[in-house]
Amino acid sequence: MAEGTGRPGAYRKGIERRRQILDHAIDLFTRRGADGASLRSVAEVIGVSHAALRHYFSSRDALLVEAYREHERRHSRPEDPAAGGPVAQMARSADRNRVVPGLVQLYATLTADALQEQHPLTREFVQARFARVRGELAQAVVQGQREGRIAADVDPHEAAALVVAASDGLQVQWLLDPGGVDVRRSLELLERVLPSRPQEPSPAEPPAAGAPGDEGGG
Amino acid sequence: MAEGTGRPGAYRKGIERRRQILDHAIDLFTRRGADGASLRSVAEVIGVSHAALRHYFSSRDALLVEAYREHERRHSRPEDPAAGGPVAQMARSADRNRVVPGLVQLYATLTADALQEQHPLTREFVQARFARVRGELAQAVVQGQREGRIAADVDPHEAAALVVAASDGLQVQWLLDPGGVDVRRSLELLERVLPSRPQEPSPAEPPAAGAPGDEGGG
Repeated sequence: MAEGTGRPGAYRKGIERRRQILDHAIDLFTRRGADGASLRSVAEVIGVSHAALRHYFSSRDALLVEAYREHERRHSRPEDPAAGGPVAQMARSADRNRVVPGLVQLYATLTADALQEQHPLTREFVQARFARVRGELAQAVVQGQREGRIAADVDPHEAAALVVAASDGLQVQWLLDPGGVDVRRSLELLERVLPSRPQEPSPAEPPAAGAPGDEGGG
Repeated sequence: MAEGTGRPGAYRKGIERRRQILDHAIDLFTRRGADGASLRSVAEVIGVSHAALRHYFSSRDALLVEAYREHERRHSRPEDPAAGGPVAQMARSADRNRVVPGLVQLYATLTADALQEQHPLTREFVQARFARVRGELAQAVVQGQREGRIAADVDPHEAAALVVAASDGLQVQWLLDPGGVDVRRSLELLERVLPSRPQEPSPAEPPAAGAPGDEGGG
């Protein structure tokens, strides 16, 4: 309501100001996670007034969701949905997260909040995000089945949920025990069910009967 | 300090009282999760004074951790570590959790808290729990390798971390989308890497070379 009070210059300035605040918030969460972050404490740390922060973000939940959404938008790549298969895709994303543990914490906070009644906005964001990511990975599974890499009797949606879950859960365990958990190596065990590349025949693992081999890949 | 003031009767009564409070807290968290639970709000809901609750649980974190620990203690079964393989074990545990979504929420809250600096006690509990569960599942993987069900080149610790992660992550997705995610069916995809039972030879999946068959186990 207070936004866009008529003058185009003011509107543009408002957008710019909002982006700056989001930059600071992402930077703050990257360094410290988002636990115990209230609008008031965030305003204090990033040096804006509580009123200014509330002008752009109506609640703590709105700020956390927008910060995470913006972080993902900046780091998403226009990826070929089928590039490298579902496991390779998640492994790359997990690799990128290694350098921003604070945002993995933020993600865990959003997910835990989403399970609680008191956070409807967070819930909506996390639900939609899970549905989208599962949809993309299911596509990659279907592609792998078309190319004969992935067994035809694997349900793409069940497999997609598994890959997302494994990646999320492994990152949490890694944050708590960086020396004891290797996200990539554990994830790569899933390659045995959902291969990203054609399987090479080996004495221990004969190729599945009926694998099409060289169909030229759609 | 206030505890055990000399009289054995008072001490026994204290233990009993603590157990009653824990019962009420577990019941409360089962129904509503633990989000936003402060010692004060929990005391109000379960009908004890804030001072009494603080006498037994020094902080919100201590109450949440003890409630979850006690819940797990009551529902743990003296399970043969090798019974049914690592995936089957986690699937059974996930099945038990279906009826107590509030405690899955509590678990997610504990895990998210554990990632934040401000919750050292929760962190210690969650770290130790992950290490213990991974250790048990790694044993089950080793057992599966001895029995020739699981490929020898699977690292038991990497596999254990994967199974825990998949189970944790799938339960979160299921809570947010009960109709769209089937924990058991997604988990069972892991059976293809970590079989709980000897694989039946089929045209599509020949038995692994060198499977020992009947060594008598144990």
